[in-house]
Amino acid sequence: MLWKGRPNRLAGVSQVAWPWQTDGMRQMLLTAAAAASFVLPAHAGEPAEIPSPGEIAAAAPARDWVPIAPSDLLVMDLAPGAAGEPRRVVIQLMPPPFSQGWIANIRKLAAAHWWDGTSVTRVQDNYVAQWGDPTEKKPLPAGLAVVSENDYVMRGDAPRWQRFSNLLIPHSDIQRYTSFEAGWPVAAEGTPDSARRWPVHCYGMVGVGRNMSPDTGSGAELYAVIGHAPRHLDRNIALVGRVVSGIEHLSSLPRGSEALGFYKDEAERVPITSIRLATELPAAGQPKFEYLSTDSESFAKYADARANRRDPFFIRPAGGADICNIPVPVRAVAAK
Amino acid sequence: MLWKGRPNRLAGVSQVAWPWQTDGMRQMLLTAAAAASFVLPAHAGEPAEIPSPGEIAAAAPARDWVPIAPSDLLVMDLAPGAAGEPRRVVIQLMPPPFSQGWIANIRKLAAAHWWDGTSVTRVQDNYVAQWGDPTEKKPLPAGLAVVSENDYVMRGDAPRWQRFSNLLIPHSDIQRYTSFEAGWPVAAEGTPDSARRWPVHCYGMVGVGRNMSPDTGSGAELYAVIGHAPRHLDRNIALVGRVVSGIEHLSSLPRGSEALGFYKDEAERVPITSIRLATELPAAGQPKFEYLSTDSESFAKYADARANRRDPFFIRPAGGADICNIPVPVRAVAAK
Repeated sequence: MLWKGRPNRLAGVSQVAWPWQTDGMRQMLLTAAAAASFVLPAHAGEPAEIPSPGEIAAAAPARDWVPIAPSDLLVMDLAPGAAGEPRRVVIQLMPPPFSQGWIANIRKLAAAHWWDGTSVTRVQDNYVAQWGDPTEKKPLPAGLAVVSENDYVMRGDAPRWQRFSNLLIPHSDIQRYTSFEAGWPVAAEGTPDSARRWPVHCYGMVGVGRNMSPDTGSGAELYAVIGHAPRHLDRNIALVGRVVSGIEHLSSLPRGSEALGFYKDEAERVPITSIRLATELPAAGQPKFEYLSTDSESFAKYADARANRRDPFFIRPAGGADICNIPVPVRAVAAK
Repeated sequence: MLWKGRPNRLAGVSQVAWPWQTDGMRQMLLTAAAAASFVLPAHAGEPAEIPSPGEIAAAAPARDWVPIAPSDLLVMDLAPGAAGEPRRVVIQLMPPPFSQGWIANIRKLAAAHWWDGTSVTRVQDNYVAQWGDPTEKKPLPAGLAVVSENDYVMRGDAPRWQRFSNLLIPHSDIQRYTSFEAGWPVAAEGTPDSARRWPVHCYGMVGVGRNMSPDTGSGAELYAVIGHAPRHLDRNIALVGRVVSGIEHLSSLPRGSEALGFYKDEAERVPITSIRLATELPAAGQPKFEYLSTDSESFAKYADARANRRDPFFIRPAGGADICNIPVPVRAVAAK
């Protein structure tokens, strides 16, 4: 009906974006599209529909999904909401080689139950939600490392840019690339085989708050991105993980009225009941997640579909996607 | 202090991003930077600090600020919040030539008080908040136009890309550009003097919900972007405005648990008390806003600073910004 404006196909999996393709990239995307056979089986008499990115991910075979080790999951329980509803946020910590100094600190802080009784202290619209000790005086556990800014950028083994050259994003003057490494969005500059690369700030990524000096972030104060990707924070703050479940418990919190979104009154802060590594929870209560391997053909098809929506709602495919418009699919694994 | 993790400079004005510069763009940015004299007057003995983007905007002379006509402001009052607090969202409608067919409908809907008693029906995390008539049966006022998809892209006068060539974003294969036109983020493809251009989805932009057919959006169902810029919606849905105040009253709403973030129960929907053009409000209660002219030198300096944060917190400037990481500064004008 003409005026029933409910856009029931406006979404599914959310965003795709910028068309930064070289001719080579375009050719690879076309090849991938041809190989992908983007038509779902149709019932007799029904037109075939091109699947959405979410449908492509959902149809990926089990072998393309990678389990996330419980030892890499940080489980943050906020105080229950106004109606008593539980508010659990689950964060996946990054694998090596990224940010391991801070992540070692975070494991120690969780083991010491250091965050219990701290709070979400800051929610700034279109930017970050941040948590930690609002007094800034709670003693930290012994043995935390001071991590230097050099670790913001990795200089180790070359990443696998080649595998996802169809997703590389060349910049016009300084050569810069983005791709996925073991399930994480990363960028590099120089040449595609450069070993200098870093994880990038996308929606839901978790980083380490710090003061002015680059080595002042311990990992005790963390933030999650709840807005448009703040690219200017890349290489300026350490990223340590991403929210894989419950981001809405942070993104839908009231915004703070003080500068930078800090809450004005103590009563506004959202208490943190506990933060634990999943391995410390009872086995039956441990959350289980898996992500779509970014080395899989399924992911290549998914990424292509994010860059070129061809499912029925869309009229004009965008022709490309920025790295943060290709969120790596993560899903909960049902308990057996 | 080393472990007091409160990153009191993590933010201010929020994000900057992608380094998509040609050599020419880089040169223009360097020239702009040199001309801008980025050093604030320092007191004796204090080091000079490079201003943040927000500080640059705040220091812009009065002549660089453009008043927004009250006839272009749509005032949406949601039912008061849990603590009785008012929840007002103010939307600026786009100027010609963009989306005027839908905007004419929206003016008629507001004049008919059509939205009074409707509600926010959908909030999908990292995507959109959407409002309108949840029954999809409320009769629309007479005289609304059916607007065709052709109006998603303008083919009229050439935009002023030249003025902001330092902000143009060249794409590698299809030539695509972004810039600002009369205070709005727009994109084009073809050549920089192309007349084919369209407004782009950034955080806070407001668009017209529709069904599968491109001409099914009347303007009665609207949405605001509350996440990473959904570039794939550009040219697929009509944009009609942007939230200039109160976006937090939409972005901090609970997310809906149904598909696409629709609320499951009627009680979850957020009632809309009224939507009015500001001109229909009592003169004393009319909100007044102004935006920083995107044709001004102040804006050029602001945009450059968004692309290259040099204020004290930052270690490595990003080297560029995407169009949605240069939000046009808008501020309330105090009543006299």
